[in-house]
Amino acid sequence: MTEPPPAPVDRASDNETSRLEAFSDGVLAVIITITAFGLRVPVGGNFGALGDRLPALLIYVLSFVFIGIYWNNHHHLLRATTRVSGAVMWANLHLLFWLSLIPVVTEWVGASHTSTAPAAAYSTVALAAAMAFQLLVVAIVRTEGRDSKVAKALASDLKSRLSTVAYAASIGLAFVTPWISYALLAAVAVTWFIPDRRLER
Amino acid sequence: MTEPPPAPVDRASDNETSRLEAFSDGVLAVIITITAFGLRVPVGGNFGALGDRLPALLIYVLSFVFIGIYWNNHHHLLRATTRVSGAVMWANLHLLFWLSLIPVVTEWVGASHTSTAPAAAYSTVALAAAMAFQLLVVAIVRTEGRDSKVAKALASDLKSRLSTVAYAASIGLAFVTPWISYALLAAVAVTWFIPDRRLER
Amino acid sequence: MTEPPPAPVDRASDNETSRLEAFSDGVLAVIITITAFGLRVPVGGNFGALGDRLPALLIYVLSFVFIGIYWNNHHHLLRATTRVSGAVMWANLHLLFWLSLIPVVTEWVGASHTSTAPAAAYSTVALAAAMAFQLLVVAIVRTEGRDSKVAKALASDLKSRLSTVAYAASIGLAFVTPWISYALLAAVAVTWFIPDRRLER
Amino acid sequence: MTEPPPAPVDRASDNETSRLEAFSDGVLAVIITITAFGLRVPVGGNFGALGDRLPALLIYVLSFVFIGIYWNNHHHLLRATTRVSGAVMWANLHLLFWLSLIPVVTEWVGASHTSTAPAAAYSTVALAAAMAFQLLVVAIVRTEGRDSKVAKALASDLKSRLSTVAYAASIGLAFVTPWISYALLAAVAVTWFIPDRRLER
Repeated sequence: MTEPPPAPVDRASDNETSRLEAFSDGVLAVIITITAFGLRVPVGGNFGALGDRLPALLIYVLSFVFIGIYWNNHHHLLRATTRVSGAVMWANLHLLFWLSLIPVVTEWVGASHTSTAPAAAYSTVALAAAMAFQLLVVAIVRTEGRDSKVAKALASDLKSRLSTVAYAASIGLAFVTPWISYALLAAVAVTWFIPDRRLER
Repeated sequence: MTEPPPAPVDRASDNETSRLEAFSDGVLAVIITITAFGLRVPVGGNFGALGDRLPALLIYVLSFVFIGIYWNNHHHLLRATTRVSGAVMWANLHLLFWLSLIPVVTEWVGASHTSTAPAAAYSTVALAAAMAFQLLVVAIVRTEGRDSKVAKALASDLKSRLSTVAYAASIGLAFVTPWISYALLAAVAVTWFIPDRRLER
Repeated sequence: MTEPPPAPVDRASDNETSRLEAFSDGVLAVIITITAFGLRVPVGGNFGALGDRLPALLIYVLSFVFIGIYWNNHHHLLRATTRVSGAVMWANLHLLFWLSLIPVVTEWVGASHTSTAPAAAYSTVALAAAMAFQLLVVAIVRTEGRDSKVAKALASDLKSRLSTVAYAASIGLAFVTPWISYALLAAVAVTWFIPDRRLER
Repeated sequence: MTEPPPAPVDRASDNETSRLEAFSDGVLAVIITITAFGLRVPVGGNFGALGDRLPALLIYVLSFVFIGIYWNNHHHLLRATTRVSGAVMWANLHLLFWLSLIPVVTEWVGASHTSTAPAAAYSTVALAAAMAFQLLVVAIVRTEGRDSKVAKALASDLKSRLSTVAYAASIGLAFVTPWISYALLAAVAVTWFIPDRRLER
């Protein structure tokens, strides 16, 4: 099988990708800061009040890393993308939709971290975002063609599948105890800490 | 009738359009995230509390799609624009003004979704934004000239007119029941889901 | 007197100006949206509740136009700028500082529009922002040189001086009645609606 | 010792640095505005209410200058950077994490400025951010090589070390009285007011 000629990257399409990336970066930048702002100020000026906010701070760390991972992988994915179709555009907005719910579920877990519902809701948003990212990959591969760089790079995507399974398990296990959910969410974050080497080339 | 020579796109005017677009994108990115942040955190940690927030979540989905549509159409409109006059600049800010009210009307509907006033207010903002977009088109066509690409592409704008009628109807019908308003708003969103092919070329 | 040679605009300095402008635009975009978010959601779902928020909405319109004017004039000023010194950088941040107080004074006036203190505070922020803009102009002229385009364009700046006087008067007259302040603030906004033609060339 | 050949700055890597900078700028722009928004609106419409918010306003000034300094130094650091490795990317996010806590500690100090805990928390965030910046420098120097421009420029970094010591002292001395902390924090801000001349070239 012969290598197809590289897809022509004209200025216009390059601008399209840049703009999609700039808009997504803008949304992610606001999401991160808004999530931090959702950390409610301790009531009163003593250290006990600060201690009460510790669970909220820890879940914020998780959310920050979570958004950081998406920012990074999203960047590598769009770098390998040469064309923006309508489907890619909406698949990207769909991903941003789920990520935009991170601030509110983070605040909820921070307020009631020992309950099942917030942990299950957080895990659901994480699962939906992971699936939205994979949908975005599918939309891009469909636009770029099966022989494109991005399609080959993402042929076998074990880590994404495992993450999806872990997020689904995290929803269910929140009904046993939310602490298992937090452990699973943290474990997945650690495995994604390293950027997707397949797309980094 | 002979084709007029293409409008000269010098670097400076290209920068003007880019900057208008970048600023608008920034505002839209913050609007989307702030709207999500306006989803108040459920009170208490159980699923009943989450269920109480469901109407707020659904209206947020509508607002997200609404902003996504404007982001997309705005982008296609500015792509076909070569010059930024003072009138275009203010017409664009006027559009952003109405869109900047989306977070607060979304939050109001989320808090009182069975009442007439929030549904009517949301519909009014939607109507005003739609008219502001058309005003922006008029300002751009006036700057670009009647024979320009953008003027010809937008000659007969049936979908915009129907949307305007639907939004106006949505205001009035909110006095019958807000559910008709929500149905109309959702229906218009669905018809705009597909980007404006006339400007996509 | 002979015309000096045009200042060399190398890529690096062009990037400096672009970045200053992009950062300022980002701050202004967030300020506008945050101000809108400060419009508190009406309490209850009836039209009376909406009517109670009308003063807040009107002062938001003023703030939106106010920020829009700064966005526009700031843009024209930086377009005529070729170099960014440390002084220009800090003068610009100083301007952004005062503008960043717009959301909170807007919210205060919206909450207590019949009182003197909020109207005086709003006028003070407007005065300080106007003076900060003039300080930025001074810093830029000092960097660019007295014979530069920007220096000549801004030689006699009647409108800025009148605005400064009007803002100062607005602080004092808030003690008579805040309505005079609002009228003065609105009048100044109207005179600035048209972008600074001197810098537009 | 011979001068090594300059590191090749290809378009791709230039884009990498630009994007890292644009994202960081976006986060910093939101942090500044959100911090201002955290200034709670005075309760009631009289000047006494405004006076009660004065400590909050003063600590906001400090935070604004603090973020401004990071914006400036970050900019100069990235200007001297030619490559973005995974380590640089995460070191940068780590810095943004600590800076994203500025709004909430600012609000806490503003609410309880006479207590030890908020002053100590603020100083801790300042210390962590300073150390995160130095970690970012280390990550960049490791990527760029010991003979690179950035490595030589940052060989002896007295001001950074003194700042770190001052922030650490500020944590401890908050237990004596928070006013010493505020004085130390302000003093460090003043010394950093001038951008890092070593990287400005």
